[in-house]
Amino acid sequence: MSIVTIERKVLEKNDELALQNRKVFQQAGAFVINIVSSPGSGKTSILERTLEHLKGRLRIAVIEGDVQTDFDAQRVAKFGVPVVQIVTNGGCHLDANLVQDALGNMDLKGIQLLVIENVGNLVCPANYDLGEHIKVVVASTTEGDDKPLKYPTMFRQASVLLVNKIDLLPYVNCNLAELKANAFKINPTLKVFEISCTTNQGIAEWCRWLEQQVQHNYH
Amino acid sequence: MSIVTIERKVLEKNDELALQNRKVFQQAGAFVINIVSSPGSGKTSILERTLEHLKGRLRIAVIEGDVQTDFDAQRVAKFGVPVVQIVTNGGCHLDANLVQDALGNMDLKGIQLLVIENVGNLVCPANYDLGEHIKVVVASTTEGDDKPLKYPTMFRQASVLLVNKIDLLPYVNCNLAELKANAFKINPTLKVFEISCTTNQGIAEWCRWLEQQVQHNYH
Repeated sequence: MSIVTIERKVLEKNDELALQNRKVFQQAGAFVINIVSSPGSGKTSILERTLEHLKGRLRIAVIEGDVQTDFDAQRVAKFGVPVVQIVTNGGCHLDANLVQDALGNMDLKGIQLLVIENVGNLVCPANYDLGEHIKVVVASTTEGDDKPLKYPTMFRQASVLLVNKIDLLPYVNCNLAELKANAFKINPTLKVFEISCTTNQGIAEWCRWLEQQVQHNYH
Repeated sequence: MSIVTIERKVLEKNDELALQNRKVFQQAGAFVINIVSSPGSGKTSILERTLEHLKGRLRIAVIEGDVQTDFDAQRVAKFGVPVVQIVTNGGCHLDANLVQDALGNMDLKGIQLLVIENVGNLVCPANYDLGEHIKVVVASTTEGDDKPLKYPTMFRQASVLLVNKIDLLPYVNCNLAELKANAFKINPTLKVFEISCTTNQGIAEWCRWLEQQVQHNYH
């Protein structure tokens, strides 16, 4: 049996489990987003600002994925939301099976929005459906404007692009128009928000859009 | 045959090929570094500043690894050094076999320093020996100070840590002392340079150290 065959079987098995997760989400009435990016793009900071902004407006739960440590779950727990930490122990992406295990430790009853924060990796998580409604990719201005072309699969799979650290634009070598043009070359239907977790720029617009998706999910 | 067995066999095969690469490097007398980091940490910018600084001092060649595009090879070629681009086509790391292919397209005769720039990924490249003398990990201040603890394998495997974008420290949520303490917790023997590709801070020190390694390699 060749390695390619094995890999295909792994992905097929993953897709099966993702379908099961999708049914669980549907039954619970939860809208589910899978946040992906490079390490250090600001996924957890965005989640903190989002939880802060949507406090009292939406019932939110979080699944945190990390290669090691539960630092991110600790940060998120401060906002008083249910959170389960998955430590992959060296694994480079979350998969539907790991998420299924996490769901076994979480009560989705009444949850309107489930946020899954993936492992920091702009390559491998692109191929693993977790059962989410949408993937949200974060690209920070400090990473430069060429990332959509260099890591196209992730930007193709995502429905939303959060351009983070927009406040650092004056200090970094990143052309914002070019970054967005590159993203649209790969995925013309991407919804883009320019945000900063330091100044809160764009957080309200992003959260408003997210609330709308949750509303649509009920109808 | 289980997937774990397949993975072990893949790594064993890789180690065999890495050993062959290592012999090729030894015969050519080339010191070889493997630069690894998250996407957008500044690997290519560091390489540009290094090539600029060492111009006329060392004979350097470059192997560029990318998931897609040959942007980085184009940037490096401007410095008049031999460069071979490896496009992994979605693959999340370089392996010894890909590097062996690249070496088939490169004349190492007279080359004193070969720089291999890996795919932007802080997880997967950690497990693949390419035959290099040392791994150099780049962490940029914009990624925060917790990365060594969250991605420990890479920091454990590396001999050198380049803390890049040191000029952005005033604007980002990163405690430099904490970042270094976290790195030393994982790997107490790490050699650390604080650098900026914008202001050139630390580039001379890094290049001086690199020159010393090349000298040692001859003796």
